[in-house]
Amino acid sequence: MTTITQIMRQSGEAFAEYRKTGPAQRALFLETIASGLEARREALTTITQEETNLPPARLNGELSRTTGQLKMFANLVREGSWVSAAIDTADGQRTPPKPDTRKMCVPLGPVVVFGASNFPYAFSTAGGDTASALAAGCTVVIRAHFAHPRTSVLVFEAMAEAVKTCGLPSHTVQHVTEPGNEAGKELVIHPLTTAVAFTGSLSGGTALMRYAHERPDPVPVFAEMSSINPVLLLPGKLKEDAAALALKMAGSITLGMGQFCTNPGLMIGIKGAELDAFQEQLAEEIGKFTPQPMLHEGIQRHYDTCTISIAAKQQVRIVADHTAMIATVAARDFLQDVHFREEVFGPYSLLVQCQDKTEMQQVMDSLKGQLTATLMATEEDLRGHAALLDSCIRTAGRVIVNEVPTGVEVCSSMVHGGPFPATSDPRFTSVGTAAIQRWVRPVCYQNFPDHLLPEALQRANPLGIWRTVNNEWTNT
Amino acid sequence: MTTITQIMRQSGEAFAEYRKTGPAQRALFLETIASGLEARREALTTITQEETNLPPARLNGELSRTTGQLKMFANLVREGSWVSAAIDTADGQRTPPKPDTRKMCVPLGPVVVFGASNFPYAFSTAGGDTASALAAGCTVVIRAHFAHPRTSVLVFEAMAEAVKTCGLPSHTVQHVTEPGNEAGKELVIHPLTTAVAFTGSLSGGTALMRYAHERPDPVPVFAEMSSINPVLLLPGKLKEDAAALALKMAGSITLGMGQFCTNPGLMIGIKGAELDAFQEQLAEEIGKFTPQPMLHEGIQRHYDTCTISIAAKQQVRIVADHTAMIATVAARDFLQDVHFREEVFGPYSLLVQCQDKTEMQQVMDSLKGQLTATLMATEEDLRGHAALLDSCIRTAGRVIVNEVPTGVEVCSSMVHGGPFPATSDPRFTSVGTAAIQRWVRPVCYQNFPDHLLPEALQRANPLGIWRTVNNEWTNT
Repeated sequence: MTTITQIMRQSGEAFAEYRKTGPAQRALFLETIASGLEARREALTTITQEETNLPPARLNGELSRTTGQLKMFANLVREGSWVSAAIDTADGQRTPPKPDTRKMCVPLGPVVVFGASNFPYAFSTAGGDTASALAAGCTVVIRAHFAHPRTSVLVFEAMAEAVKTCGLPSHTVQHVTEPGNEAGKELVIHPLTTAVAFTGSLSGGTALMRYAHERPDPVPVFAEMSSINPVLLLPGKLKEDAAALALKMAGSITLGMGQFCTNPGLMIGIKGAELDAFQEQLAEEIGKFTPQPMLHEGIQRHYDTCTISIAAKQQVRIVADHTAMIATVAARDFLQDVHFREEVFGPYSLLVQCQDKTEMQQVMDSLKGQLTATLMATEEDLRGHAALLDSCIRTAGRVIVNEVPTGVEVCSSMVHGGPFPATSDPRFTSVGTAAIQRWVRPVCYQNFPDHLLPEALQRANPLGIWRTVNNEWTNT
Repeated sequence: MTTITQIMRQSGEAFAEYRKTGPAQRALFLETIASGLEARREALTTITQEETNLPPARLNGELSRTTGQLKMFANLVREGSWVSAAIDTADGQRTPPKPDTRKMCVPLGPVVVFGASNFPYAFSTAGGDTASALAAGCTVVIRAHFAHPRTSVLVFEAMAEAVKTCGLPSHTVQHVTEPGNEAGKELVIHPLTTAVAFTGSLSGGTALMRYAHERPDPVPVFAEMSSINPVLLLPGKLKEDAAALALKMAGSITLGMGQFCTNPGLMIGIKGAELDAFQEQLAEEIGKFTPQPMLHEGIQRHYDTCTISIAAKQQVRIVADHTAMIATVAARDFLQDVHFREEVFGPYSLLVQCQDKTEMQQVMDSLKGQLTATLMATEEDLRGHAALLDSCIRTAGRVIVNEVPTGVEVCSSMVHGGPFPATSDPRFTSVGTAAIQRWVRPVCYQNFPDHLLPEALQRANPLGIWRTVNNEWTNT
């Protein structure tokens, strides 16, 4: 068996070549991976269904999302402006003379990607982390997730085939499949590793962060870990639309058996007839839901433990526990027990009942960092709750008005990230084109002869990319 | 005395207001600080000379650089495109419907800035860290450097005055002057602190990194710590220009008594008559240099200890130790002793003599992360040493051809940063407009009514900034 040290050395050697590939070559590579996955669609969805219990429609959708991501990064790389080129030209007349300086992003080096259990395609072997790292010019070592090993092998097969087809260094991507946690730790602490991506539990993510920080040369870890995604039910909206709102929320809470990072695990409203009506309607909708088996036994066990422990609390009333669980608690009690603020991964949501606007604000301010915060609100509600909106901005990476948090659009303006513990670093996103920024650092080239500069920085702008020249934006 | 807890609470409260200031207001604030410093120029340079031993010409230059930085950030904020706005518009026809998502950068929160000893203006109280954090919309708590306390008080006076003049929350900037290391640690671990800036020693920087990582919610530390800034003397260039090169290097090594982060502490060349000639000329130039007292006693003591320890090594020959120290060592010996790779802060440089190109590469590859790497080279040299150029890019944040590393231009394309231990995070720069990126995170606004969006994201683009709309760059 190849040791971790061998794997990382191979990744380092492949990086020395792969980082020099041009935009066209890298884009073609990403598109070839996408075609390889497409060619395996039937085999993949069959195997993955066996491994994860996820239904075919969902798996087909997720596979399309994954190939779409690969193609999006291919387009991003081909267009080229993502390198954030900035140029300041020399001025010999100035005292002291001003040098010619030109900056662009370059890839960090070998990246370790941990596959996630809840998105066996989109956040796993050839998911967004891998696609963005390869797009940036980094080599990738993938730590397969134990819950879908055969899926991971088949996806990796498509990647290895693409490496060959495109004539790239054979260790541009590598796959670590041995069981246990030790391999993961070894990968993170290896001297040649330059960055790490992880999506999973808070305990797993913080362990990786610790390993990375304790290295003689700390490296960044992008861990997406824990979020309860508060939904604020404002009074005007509840009055206007309680039934429709309940329907929407029931759909979002139970989507994919609640196994999404953006699952709305917390709803906050002000006590009264409207909130009662919403609660009643929500319980009814939840009752209609047909449950599916969860991703794997460990997740089911954890869900059971959490929901039993919540249900056992005296302060809590269970509104629905037929197939998914809706619990409700008074804001005062919520504020006194930190357990209510912890993620329950699965089809669960807690409705917090506040006395008034002030208490609603207190509940919101008691929360740690979140991936999302949602305001269900009329225009008048929004005008009357400016401080609550501020709290949402301070707390979350994405703030939503009148849409559910589940469903993360893959695009340039997406932020799938947020203050700790939602992620380890709120300055970056793991979904959308900006995800590529996690794997690069800027380098300034000073006083270089034009022909020795990377094309992105050459005087004539042969790539035609957007850049600043003496602080003016231009693509010529 | 106000406790750290009170100070951070005040900073948090001020942040809630200050983050809402518009571009014009924030720009005016930065310009008012610059005017306040200008008005105190004579008093400042007099006091700072007493405190730091730096000569008036240097201090006047550095003060202008500092007011220039403040004005640069004012212009950046007024222009507005720095928020990296990206917009993707809704598409109700798509299955599933595509939401309207809009992303921009928002400030992190209260920032703690540690003043640096070697740039009492440009990297201290109202230096680049403070200016960029205030530009981003963060409030700032400044930890005054013990080596120039009166300078720090006077600079802070200008800032406090600007806060008043501009009608900003009175705790937008605060100043912590009590002696000892404990206050610094308390500032870093306080729950309301969201980021930290530091320029100084490796031991100081790594201690702050540790405090920040050990928090229940880790926060980023931007520490600039240690760099020996290798200069590669390539054969063609030595042959062509040994005397001029020696003159240039002598100037760079002794500039400001070598008390710069970008001081060239390492020169690497291939043995031979040309390198001998260079060495001889360098020794002669260094002999002409008139030394000045160092910044403070601690720095002088450390410099003495380091140079005595280097001189005591059997493998080393001292070429010049009249006023600055030039030592020389064989590459083989250099590679066997890690002490040679450590920074000696002051007018010192080590010339490594290699047998050949291969050994030169080995020396370069043995180095840790650097702020800069310099190639003194003809065009032919550069063509013949592609692997060395690659090493420079991998190792440093700024790669320079035929100019000295001292002198850091303040502009958009500057990178003053580099892989560990040069800095704690090579993905950011502490000099130039991009320094603002350290203090922000992106937020995605989904499905917001237009009038409730920040101006930078509104449909009509009232600020006229550059942004992407459905992946196309536009400023309309």
